[in-house]
Amino acid sequence: MNGKESMHKTPYGYALRVEISFDDAVIKAKEAFAVEGFGVLSEIDVAAKVKEKLNKEMDPYVILGMCNPSLAYDALQTEAEIGLLLPCNVIVYRQGAATIIAAQRPDVILGVTGNLSLAEIARNADAKILKALHSLGR
Amino acid sequence: MNGKESMHKTPYGYALRVEISFDDAVIKAKEAFAVEGFGVLSEIDVAAKVKEKLNKEMDPYVILGMCNPSLAYDALQTEAEIGLLLPCNVIVYRQGAATIIAAQRPDVILGVTGNLSLAEIARNADAKILKALHSLGR
Repeated sequence: MNGKESMHKTPYGYALRVEISFDDAVIKAKEAFAVEGFGVLSEIDVAAKVKEKLNKEMDPYVILGMCNPSLAYDALQTEAEIGLLLPCNVIVYRQGAATIIAAQRPDVILGVTGNLSLAEIARNADAKILKALHSLGR
Repeated sequence: MNGKESMHKTPYGYALRVEISFDDAVIKAKEAFAVEGFGVLSEIDVAAKVKEKLNKEMDPYVILGMCNPSLAYDALQTEAEIGLLLPCNVIVYRQGAATIIAAQRPDVILGVTGNLSLAEIARNADAKILKALHSLGR
């Protein structure tokens, strides 16, 4: 977007700083993940909820519950309770003058299961998430 | 419900077997978590999605994205990217003739952050989740 990609790995996510507005980032994130087969199963406007429930102000912040149906189905067949860790969250929020798009790291999130049969699914999800983020960072 | 509680701890959740229908369990779970201050921010009918997207059949399975606004707000103030791990999932699904209600273990989920400042919030969330599940198991 500005020619410089600034993605970094956090303890449980991949975070990308983008030089576009919050609203554009939400749209672009949905588009980029759709290309990798992820649909939006839930969309939580965190700032609106905080205002509604606690009457506190915060900068724009949305949690998108993204799901790649094939990967999710395979995971559910492997481990029934994996729904506790689904869908895969992508967040978009403002930080100062920048907009951040971040996604869960499947290796960390699925890693808490201790189920090695999920490793291949985690690798596939990881590759798709990184492709989506890289496309947003270009 | 049948006088015998059968909750057990899994690697990342608390699972409770209840002797009621799936539909009743979804309603009761929402009620029990509401008592502890959790609202439902998202509700994903996994079986319906799997049917719609993959044309495959599976037993009833729902993911409820539950949120206690005060705890979530405190967590967000402590760590901006914590939205990647929110809301707190509660799942209800059928397993043979039984219905299972399970909830995320905040110690495990928030534990992936490595942020010790979240420990108190995780303990509070844990206590509320256990109270909700115990009330369902009685």
